[in-house]
Amino acid sequence: MSEAKTKAYGTQAAEKPLGSLNIQRREPTPHDVEIEILYCGVCHSDLHTARNEWHNSVYPVVPGHEIVGKVTRVGDHVTQFKVGDLAAVGCMVDSCRECEYCKEGLEQYCEPGNTLTYNSPDKHLGGQTFGGYSEKIVVDENYVLHVPESLDLAAAAPLLCAGITTWSPLRHWQVGPGKKVGIVGIGGLGHMGIKFAKAMGAQVVVFTTSQSKFDDAKRLGADEVVLSTDREQMKKYRHKLHFVLDCVSASHDINSYLALLRVDGTLALVGAPENPLPVAAFSLIPKRISFAGSTIGSIAETQEMLDFCGRHNITSDIEMINIDQINEAYDRLLKGDVKYRFVIDMASLKK
Amino acid sequence: MSEAKTKAYGTQAAEKPLGSLNIQRREPTPHDVEIEILYCGVCHSDLHTARNEWHNSVYPVVPGHEIVGKVTRVGDHVTQFKVGDLAAVGCMVDSCRECEYCKEGLEQYCEPGNTLTYNSPDKHLGGQTFGGYSEKIVVDENYVLHVPESLDLAAAAPLLCAGITTWSPLRHWQVGPGKKVGIVGIGGLGHMGIKFAKAMGAQVVVFTTSQSKFDDAKRLGADEVVLSTDREQMKKYRHKLHFVLDCVSASHDINSYLALLRVDGTLALVGAPENPLPVAAFSLIPKRISFAGSTIGSIAETQEMLDFCGRHNITSDIEMINIDQINEAYDRLLKGDVKYRFVIDMASLKK
Repeated sequence: MSEAKTKAYGTQAAEKPLGSLNIQRREPTPHDVEIEILYCGVCHSDLHTARNEWHNSVYPVVPGHEIVGKVTRVGDHVTQFKVGDLAAVGCMVDSCRECEYCKEGLEQYCEPGNTLTYNSPDKHLGGQTFGGYSEKIVVDENYVLHVPESLDLAAAAPLLCAGITTWSPLRHWQVGPGKKVGIVGIGGLGHMGIKFAKAMGAQVVVFTTSQSKFDDAKRLGADEVVLSTDREQMKKYRHKLHFVLDCVSASHDINSYLALLRVDGTLALVGAPENPLPVAAFSLIPKRISFAGSTIGSIAETQEMLDFCGRHNITSDIEMINIDQINEAYDRLLKGDVKYRFVIDMASLKK
Repeated sequence: MSEAKTKAYGTQAAEKPLGSLNIQRREPTPHDVEIEILYCGVCHSDLHTARNEWHNSVYPVVPGHEIVGKVTRVGDHVTQFKVGDLAAVGCMVDSCRECEYCKEGLEQYCEPGNTLTYNSPDKHLGGQTFGGYSEKIVVDENYVLHVPESLDLAAAAPLLCAGITTWSPLRHWQVGPGKKVGIVGIGGLGHMGIKFAKAMGAQVVVFTTSQSKFDDAKRLGADEVVLSTDREQMKKYRHKLHFVLDCVSASHDINSYLALLRVDGTLALVGAPENPLPVAAFSLIPKRISFAGSTIGSIAETQEMLDFCGRHNITSDIEMINIDQINEAYDRLLKGDVKYRFVIDMASLKK
C-alpha cells in the first residue's frame, strides 16, 4: 500500500505543546473515502490525550475527532460517497464488524473495541491512528457521515462528538413533548443538550452555578433556568423532572440532581468527573431512580442526528481559531473560556 | 368509632427492649377487613424503627410488616374477602388514592406519601400506625392481599416485604429466560432474589464474600456461585450479566459489580447502605450502564408475586421464634445470624 505524506499538527510528548508534523495517510482502499479536512472541532478529549491524562497516549498524538470536509477520492467499491460530497468523521473510524454489537449497528459498543479516530491501533498502517488536526483523512465509507448542505460547515464540526454525545442519551431516554428535562452545565456538551432537548419538544430546565449564564441559557432554548447553588430554587424542582442530562465534568453533588427526578427518572452522566461521585442509596431507592452514563452514538444514530440538525438548522456555537492558536485554545478550554466550542479552520494548516 | 384493646409487642423508646403493651385497633369500617395475625416476619426495618435509627420514630413503636393471618370480620362493603379467608398485609395500609401514581396503581410512589403499616400517621385513630407484632390488625380491603392456600403460612410471611422488594426489580428489569442475572448477598432479601430469578427462568449467578455459603446458594437455586473477594473469579464475569440485584446493606465496592454488566445493563440496589457509595463515571459511561434503586411494589404487583409463589411453591427459608425471643432475634439479625428470616409465631403473644 502506497502512502502519502500529510501535514498535521500534534505533539511528541505529554509535556510538549502541539506543533507541525508530518504523518502518513494510506492510499484509499476500494472501500475508503479520502476527505480534505476543512474544519475540526476541539474536544476536551483532545487535550486529555495530547497530555496523556488518561495514561494511554502513544506518541506522536494528532488529536481531532470532530471532522468535516470534502471528499477528494473514493475507492472503487464506494457507493455512498462521490468526489465533491460533504463528509464528516466522528470519534471512531472502524470496528470489528463481527461482534453482536457491531452486527446490531451499535459500533460504539464493539466488543473487541472499535478503532478510535486518534490514538488507536491503526489496522492498515500499524502504529496509531491520527485525528483531524491534519490536511486529510482516509476512512472506510461505513464510518463516514453525510453532512446536510444547509448547515454552516464549521459550526457543524462539533456535532460529531459534542452533538452525538448529548443527542444519544436524549433519544435513548425518550426525551420529547410532554417531558420535563434538566440540563446540568452549559459548556460544549450542555449547550448542545439544550438545543436538542428544545428541538425535540421537551420543556427544558437548565441548571447552572453562574447567574451570568442565565441569558445565554435562554437564548440557547431553555424554558427555565435554575441557579443550582440556591437551595430554594432547587427545592422547587424536587421530583419534577423526567430526565436529567448531566454535562459537568468537575466534581459535583450528584444527589442534589438525583433529587430532581420523578419516579422512574434517569440522570445520565456525559461529563466525566475524575473522582468517584458519592451516591446515597436513598437517592435511588424510594422512587426507582437510575443514575446512568452515556457515551457517543452509533454511526446510524450520528447520521440521524445530522439529518435532524439539517431539518432544524442546529449547529454548535463556535469560536473559530487557526491551527497555530491550538495551545492557547487548550489553556482557555481548561478555564472554561469558550462559547461554546473551538473549531479549527484547517485552511490555516496549509499556509 | 369504637375501639378495641389489642395485645401487642413494642417499645416506648429507642434504647428500651421490646415488651408487651396494649394498643387500640379501630372497629372495621364498611371497607375494612379485620385480620387475626398468625405469623409476622422480622424485617431489618423493624429494628431500625424500634431503635430510631432513621430518626423518625414516634413511640410507642409496634413493628412488623410481613403479616399473614385469617379474616375475622369484614365491613359491609367489603367484596374481596370473607371471614375465614387467609389474608396478608405488607408495608403499606393506605395511600392518598388521588395522585397520579395512586391512580395508576403504583401506591408505593403515592405523592403525598402512603400510610406505612407502622410508624405512619394513622388517619382513623390519630397517633401512629401499629404493625404486625400484635394480635390483630384492621386494614382497608384494597390494601390487603390474598395468600394462596397451598403455601406454608409462616414461611409466606416474609414474602410481604423481603419477597416483593426483590420480586419488583426482577420483574421491572425483565429478568427471565435468556437473561444472566447476578444476585449479590445471600440474606433475607438475597435468598428470595435467588429463588425468584431462578423460577423466572434466568441463569442465576450468586456473589458472596463467604465460601461457606456456596452450597446454600446452590440449594436455593444458583446456577453459579462466585467468591466476590477473588479478583480472578470476578474477572470471568466482566460484562457478562444483563442485570444485578444488589441486596447488600453494608458498604461495598459498587464499581466492581457495575463492571459485571453488559451494555445497557442495570444494577438495582435494594439493600440500603448507610454511607454514600462512590461511583466512578467510567463505571457507567462506556457501556450505558445504570445504577438504580428499587423499593417495594404496588398492591397489584404484590398479589401477582403471591400468586406466582403459589404456582411455584416459593416461600422464605425461616426460623420460627416466639414473641418473647424478639430482642434476641434483633441481636442475631445484626450479626447476620439467621437463615434467612425470623418469623414470629403470634400464638405466643396470647399465652
